[in-house]
Amino acid sequence: MATLPPIAHREYEARVHRAQDLMAKAGLDAVLATSEYNFRYFTGDIGQSPYQTTRPRCILIPAKGKPVGLVARGIDQALVDTTWVTEVRSWPGPNPADEGVSAIVSAICDLTSDQSRIGIEMGPESRLGLPLADFMRISGLIGERQFVDGQVPVFLPVKQIKSTAELARIRTACQIVSSGFAALPGELRLGDTEVEACRKLEALCFERGIDKTPKITGISGRGGHFRTFAGPTQRQLGAGDILFIDAGCTVDFYWCDFNRHFAFGSVDPATAKAYELIWEATEAGIKAVKPGVTASHVWREMNDVIVRAKGAGTTNSFGRMGHSMGLTTTELPSISPLDETVLVPGMTLNIEPSTLYESHYDGSVKLMVHEEDVVVTESGCEVMTRRAPLSIPVIIASN
Amino acid sequence: MATLPPIAHREYEARVHRAQDLMAKAGLDAVLATSEYNFRYFTGDIGQSPYQTTRPRCILIPAKGKPVGLVARGIDQALVDTTWVTEVRSWPGPNPADEGVSAIVSAICDLTSDQSRIGIEMGPESRLGLPLADFMRISGLIGERQFVDGQVPVFLPVKQIKSTAELARIRTACQIVSSGFAALPGELRLGDTEVEACRKLEALCFERGIDKTPKITGISGRGGHFRTFAGPTQRQLGAGDILFIDAGCTVDFYWCDFNRHFAFGSVDPATAKAYELIWEATEAGIKAVKPGVTASHVWREMNDVIVRAKGAGTTNSFGRMGHSMGLTTTELPSISPLDETVLVPGMTLNIEPSTLYESHYDGSVKLMVHEEDVVVTESGCEVMTRRAPLSIPVIIASN
Repeated sequence: MATLPPIAHREYEARVHRAQDLMAKAGLDAVLATSEYNFRYFTGDIGQSPYQTTRPRCILIPAKGKPVGLVARGIDQALVDTTWVTEVRSWPGPNPADEGVSAIVSAICDLTSDQSRIGIEMGPESRLGLPLADFMRISGLIGERQFVDGQVPVFLPVKQIKSTAELARIRTACQIVSSGFAALPGELRLGDTEVEACRKLEALCFERGIDKTPKITGISGRGGHFRTFAGPTQRQLGAGDILFIDAGCTVDFYWCDFNRHFAFGSVDPATAKAYELIWEATEAGIKAVKPGVTASHVWREMNDVIVRAKGAGTTNSFGRMGHSMGLTTTELPSISPLDETVLVPGMTLNIEPSTLYESHYDGSVKLMVHEEDVVVTESGCEVMTRRAPLSIPVIIASN
Repeated sequence: MATLPPIAHREYEARVHRAQDLMAKAGLDAVLATSEYNFRYFTGDIGQSPYQTTRPRCILIPAKGKPVGLVARGIDQALVDTTWVTEVRSWPGPNPADEGVSAIVSAICDLTSDQSRIGIEMGPESRLGLPLADFMRISGLIGERQFVDGQVPVFLPVKQIKSTAELARIRTACQIVSSGFAALPGELRLGDTEVEACRKLEALCFERGIDKTPKITGISGRGGHFRTFAGPTQRQLGAGDILFIDAGCTVDFYWCDFNRHFAFGSVDPATAKAYELIWEATEAGIKAVKPGVTASHVWREMNDVIVRAKGAGTTNSFGRMGHSMGLTTTELPSISPLDETVLVPGMTLNIEPSTLYESHYDGSVKLMVHEEDVVVTESGCEVMTRRAPLSIPVIIASN
């Protein structure tokens, strides 16, 4: 595990204060954060489990004053002992008949006045961290108070600007996985399966100090591949194959997320040409990132490179050419023609242009997609990943 | 990665048929599965990402006939190519303004009649895999049809009985991590931090073929520990310490989840005594598991062992002494005095008794909790983990 100083209690406090500022602007009297990653964001919870389906963990942030943790009994004191949170209410769980419902209702009623508007995870890309039926019961038990969306006014903007400590984690993940990717050609062999190739990358990253390797997608095909997900499989890598690996890995719960390509035996000219074009499109995307421009501007700069080379309609973006990331991947904004989010320093962006091309071998449709992780700085951006090589590394050795 | 034959398409088809049988009993006209693990359960999706917050993936299972995948464009053909699903509808995503809402509404309206009752994740321990606002919009656009809970009548029971292929994955995870735990004392040193100790276990499990190690909780203290979560930290392990590691690891997305103890320098008598008692309580739990008994019966058998030794009120269970697991950990049933679920062959159970005791050193309250993973068989149960040693292994060597 990469050793970084723990995130300071005052940073969590500052996150809550920023949330309260955003709540004031949006006219919210409180927010209730229920998802695992929102709970972690505000509390500093060091629980390892990705799901808390039995005993949800929530934090209620009033308009002013300290937040209140809402957890099952037994977790309450742990939260006080291991995080900055000092106010906790609990219930005897697990108890599916009342899994925090009464405790959450009474906390809301005690901390907010009648007719309060309480933000909760509702809006785009958010997830509720409670059973829906429990949310409905809570909604019916808080009098004239009502739940409204907390995602757009509070959760999204508060998390979008990463702190120095958050960036240290993301940057460390980017650097470890970059180093792992760089070492991978020395480990890959003709005859490896996609699964074996992905395992080799995981081993290299693990040796170098990555915490977790949750998303290691590997996809291959002769003269290129067509997907960025739904792999790896037991397909064996042979001469003429291109292997694409997309690595989402974490350090202290913060993600990196980027991909690299590897060729077996040789690189066919169609793939080489597409690789070069998308490398240049990535470069254009990186150059476009600076405070004040929109996510859609970054999309257009990359799109222009592709359209100039290949004509209109040749960009394949599955709706976008990148996104952001933090305690989850992916996060908003999307680098899409529709997303008018204005970039500000501290935002992370995954610069991810793509194009379709025809296989050198059989004319079938292939996808070329690159990805680099950057953070917006005062004057432009810092590329946190080690830039992809100018051409695809070629593996010659066989098992 | 442990190599197991892929789960056959006919098994996914059988899961859907079982769901349809349960739907008929419950009077449901369809179920919409939205959470990542429910989607995976019915489709066999091999996407690696634990979250799909940008582009939700759903499957609509009508009362009769084939299920329909509902995914963003670009994922549609992948689902057809890589899973057994043949019917897919898609939308151009990401598009937060209509992230599948219209596509889901039209699929529901096409496949179900007016006034249909559609099960979705609502009930105990379920999670909705869509933004709440999108769920609400969908609810308002399907006419007189209504969403009702699908968790209790369908999702829970259909997933509770594990197939041979599912058990092969869970058993493999149990065996790999058992082997890793057995080898760990040879790697641990006085002076290691909790984090380092956990990393050593992860490395041993990784070498032995575990896929992922999402939850490796390590907690230590002089003469015992008090928690089962909120760790590991940079605390250094010294003479008199007891280290508790709880390992939730996966093979092909299926979990094992169990813990082990390690002593440094020596084992104090209070800890040794509590360890022995809870080993015996675990044994009683294992012996109690058989078809036809309830989860609460297993709880009582373990509780009796503890109460006989220490008197009433000495069981510390945080509300339960175990649970089930599968594509997530934890899953229902809970091994609690309240849970009257009747055990049937194919159910997994995490047998997890605990008690509080006083530290030999300072009289502070400590927690002793063991855990073994079993599956209910026709005549009793199979213990899938390698049984914990009869006494705590003691690490003498220092760094």
